[in-house]
Amino acid sequence: MPTRAEIDSLPLSPAHKARLLCRHNIVETTSGLAGDYVQANLIVLQSDYANDFRMLCARNPVPCPILGWTPVGDPRRIIPTSPGISVIDESAESDFDIRTDVPYYNIFRTINDTNQPGKKKVVIETKSDLLADWTPHHIAFLIGCSFSFEQALTQSGLRICHQEDSRTVAMYQTSIPLLPAGIFHGSTFVVSMRLYKDDEIEQVRNVTRPYLASHGEPVAWGWEDAKRIGVNDLGNVDYGDKQIVREDDVPVFWGCGVTPQFAVEKALERDAIAGTVMAHKPGHMLVTDWKTSDFLAHTRMQLGLSMEH
Amino acid sequence: MPTRAEIDSLPLSPAHKARLLCRHNIVETTSGLAGDYVQANLIVLQSDYANDFRMLCARNPVPCPILGWTPVGDPRRIIPTSPGISVIDESAESDFDIRTDVPYYNIFRTINDTNQPGKKKVVIETKSDLLADWTPHHIAFLIGCSFSFEQALTQSGLRICHQEDSRTVAMYQTSIPLLPAGIFHGSTFVVSMRLYKDDEIEQVRNVTRPYLASHGEPVAWGWEDAKRIGVNDLGNVDYGDKQIVREDDVPVFWGCGVTPQFAVEKALERDAIAGTVMAHKPGHMLVTDWKTSDFLAHTRMQLGLSMEH
Repeated sequence: MPTRAEIDSLPLSPAHKARLLCRHNIVETTSGLAGDYVQANLIVLQSDYANDFRMLCARNPVPCPILGWTPVGDPRRIIPTSPGISVIDESAESDFDIRTDVPYYNIFRTINDTNQPGKKKVVIETKSDLLADWTPHHIAFLIGCSFSFEQALTQSGLRICHQEDSRTVAMYQTSIPLLPAGIFHGSTFVVSMRLYKDDEIEQVRNVTRPYLASHGEPVAWGWEDAKRIGVNDLGNVDYGDKQIVREDDVPVFWGCGVTPQFAVEKALERDAIAGTVMAHKPGHMLVTDWKTSDFLAHTRMQLGLSMEH
Repeated sequence: MPTRAEIDSLPLSPAHKARLLCRHNIVETTSGLAGDYVQANLIVLQSDYANDFRMLCARNPVPCPILGWTPVGDPRRIIPTSPGISVIDESAESDFDIRTDVPYYNIFRTINDTNQPGKKKVVIETKSDLLADWTPHHIAFLIGCSFSFEQALTQSGLRICHQEDSRTVAMYQTSIPLLPAGIFHGSTFVVSMRLYKDDEIEQVRNVTRPYLASHGEPVAWGWEDAKRIGVNDLGNVDYGDKQIVREDDVPVFWGCGVTPQFAVEKALERDAIAGTVMAHKPGHMLVTDWKTSDFLAHTRMQLGLSMEH
């Protein structure tokens, strides 16, 4: 296994090096890695559910901005959803493989729920690769990640609390309804949280707004909003790490790409999904070869945003 | 002024005839008119707010599926947002004008709120045209409407309660958060409601799901969901008419294109919008020249939906 110093010295792009660090489990959270590049959440399921999943993302683009998907059964290729964004392919200099290039994966299985007949209970196992679980019937979806706009925040002089304190970002299940699509219903948003001062919030909103493919601007901010979306105790995280709250800190919440994992759990509990569902371990993302600037340009064009305002 | 019989006998498309009926205020609600054609909600505001409005729609495509917009100051032309959908233009055989072709319009103005200093109170005036209020600084946005999938429901043997009882569709303000974008924040979804039997709901979901540009499948259904989204009394409508609830009827709720009017009101109350904002009167839509089938095909392509499932 290569060392971090050996990987750092290779003549590869920052994104490719980051993926090698992830593949060999040399890094934990990917926050702060290869800041010019887009990071992505992962969902892998059998292709029978692909249309419902695509519809779920189309209806909920803030928590689930869909960036691309593999062909069915081919873990070495990502077809982007946006025109003008390049295909990710192992045939080039890259040795990309979705089954190994994420630091850690969640594997979802169900057992019978002895307390509720007819219902299933979800059991999550964490692994460092998907080589034994991927089948020719599986398709992987990449979903945008807020780590992709963190460099823009730091370049604007705004801090990233979990980077400063060397933790994984804090994530919470909320009461914001996720809009249903096919087998995916009865679920809610997962959000990521960063801490700012009251007078920084407008700047934080403005800096992150253009990053639509990475969740864009916050969905809620302030202590009152936190309660309104069902986050009553910041110390009680559902994914990632609890953060250190300093004087005058105010929580700011963004849509989070762990949302589809929560939606998958609800569908699994109803026994609506056959086969194994897989995902990344929250906070441990795929670093793609796509530049954040490419997606910014695409969003401006797609939305027809005028530049004078 | 022409009569309904005179308009019906003209050698024009069903959509064009419907617009003439609307222009001359011969019809009230447009539900059931020209069933093959896309109907649209309207928002008109000064172009300074166009980018924030586009971002609001991009983040909330279920209540606010954006179909197209006018050039700034030109009320006779609609540029579609989707490739492959044609421009609507008065230069062809059509005599389209966004200022006259909707049956009734809402004009939003503000006065000082004497109870809350610094806050504004919104006053809505209803008019049959916008000729006196449109300026060269205004831009009009068209938002999809659930009337566009009603023909698909009736063709599947499902009833449309407000058509059967000759009422305007019932609409409600809910507690579902509208995701913020720029000056538009602190608002919630408006939904339309139709009544079905419990065992029809899966079919209703399946029939309306593909109509993504017309709000797609329901956002909530059943009496428990009604309470969960803040609709505690079906008799207490916020827009349109109260419906007759028959035995075993269950409410089914869709995202509604009146949502941006509610978002505009919140922004007006904070004094965040200068100039006059205009919209259609809820239930009284623009009938466009676009076919619903064109948008269905575009959605399938855009989402990459596979046909085998």
